[in-house]
Amino acid sequence: MKIRVYYEDTDAGGIVYHTNYIKYCERARSELFFQQDLEPNDGELSGFVVKHIDANFIGRAVLGDMLQVTTELFQRKKASLILKQSIFKDKEQIFEMKITLVFVRLGKPSKIPEKMYEILGS
Amino acid sequence: MKIRVYYEDTDAGGIVYHTNYIKYCERARSELFFQQDLEPNDGELSGFVVKHIDANFIGRAVLGDMLQVTTELFQRKKASLILKQSIFKDKEQIFEMKITLVFVRLGKPSKIPEKMYEILGS
Amino acid sequence: MKIRVYYEDTDAGGIVYHTNYIKYCERARSELFFQQDLEPNDGELSGFVVKHIDANFIGRAVLGDMLQVTTELFQRKKASLILKQSIFKDKEQIFEMKITLVFVRLGKPSKIPEKMYEILGS
Amino acid sequence: MKIRVYYEDTDAGGIVYHTNYIKYCERARSELFFQQDLEPNDGELSGFVVKHIDANFIGRAVLGDMLQVTTELFQRKKASLILKQSIFKDKEQIFEMKITLVFVRLGKPSKIPEKMYEILGS
Repeated sequence: MKIRVYYEDTDAGGIVYHTNYIKYCERARSELFFQQDLEPNDGELSGFVVKHIDANFIGRAVLGDMLQVTTELFQRKKASLILKQSIFKDKEQIFEMKITLVFVRLGKPSKIPEKMYEILGS
Repeated sequence: MKIRVYYEDTDAGGIVYHTNYIKYCERARSELFFQQDLEPNDGELSGFVVKHIDANFIGRAVLGDMLQVTTELFQRKKASLILKQSIFKDKEQIFEMKITLVFVRLGKPSKIPEKMYEILGS
Repeated sequence: MKIRVYYEDTDAGGIVYHTNYIKYCERARSELFFQQDLEPNDGELSGFVVKHIDANFIGRAVLGDMLQVTTELFQRKKASLILKQSIFKDKEQIFEMKITLVFVRLGKPSKIPEKMYEILGS
Repeated sequence: MKIRVYYEDTDAGGIVYHTNYIKYCERARSELFFQQDLEPNDGELSGFVVKHIDANFIGRAVLGDMLQVTTELFQRKKASLILKQSIFKDKEQIFEMKITLVFVRLGKPSKIPEKMYEILGS
């Protein structure tokens, strides 16, 4: 998934504001669902909740850069999963994070439907 | 209402990103309700919807500035109202907008409850 | 220019937060420059400054919507111009604004270079 | 430092969008400097760069909540430091992160001035 850096993404330091890399990763996760005309849930009262983020800020992006976000399954548990997401600027990696998502249904952690794994590409 | 300018509010131009002044005004409107332990609505299926904005960008704010937002009732109609909101940096006015808000209940424009006017201070 | 609505764009009302339509329009303006490997300025000490916005919020967009932003020149002056930008969801128009941009060089309003008009498509 | 949750902070899930807790922590760090009429750097060509974030999302905040952010020094190295920042809603902790900041001067990691530690409160 490609993402362009606009003014709104930068800060007075002239580079992309640090939390925006984490937002770009969320866009990439959601886009996997939208591409299949789905929403990132399994019906209205279910969905993924962010539990943990471990993020390395490796490089920097500036206004006008075209970035690429990759997403891969890193670990699979019953009611949660860990994704590894990376951001590249041309071929240089500038960001990497592992994000733990818990699947919640009716407010409770719940078994992740198999189709979720299919959508997430593994 | 006082608002501090943080990194997230600025852009690569070194100043506050233009739409953020409009966000500051929304904070000020909501704060009028929060100050009274209310939400900006009259029960769950009602609330104000932004219909029109006429905004003048007069000056500029930078990282660390402490701004002040003022809100006054400009015009009063049955199901809508116009607020005039201004932003000051010290005593210099840097932004002004007139915003038209429609009161919606169950999805339809609806008479604005009198207590809304009391909260909005007039 | 097409823009997808992600979680970050929505608010607790379940729809796109009002100022984000104005951000989408900024993305569309910048993209006209980025598409030609340019930045939205004419050298480092020049660029457009937002002076005035007149915006009509006509409809609403929700999570996952694919929106389209159009930009056309509405009025042309010496040191400023007015653009008319519209946002469509499928064929329904949901937003329209006229935005006045002043061209600034070395901190002063300055004649807009002809190539700016070419980039803006007119 | 107290932070109010406004519409802009929430998403269509009805709660605060996950990356905004990380933004709140940045506000709290900057505020430590602004309170002393300083900027979060040691002159124009220096400042802190975010290197790593390890964040636990424990609870949730909603529109109108008043949150409190605490910041303490967790580890001290020559050119970098780790802060532990927590967010509380009333007395319940809803977020915690450890953030590694590198002090950069003229583009290079550089010894952190002692006064930085004084400002950060330790």
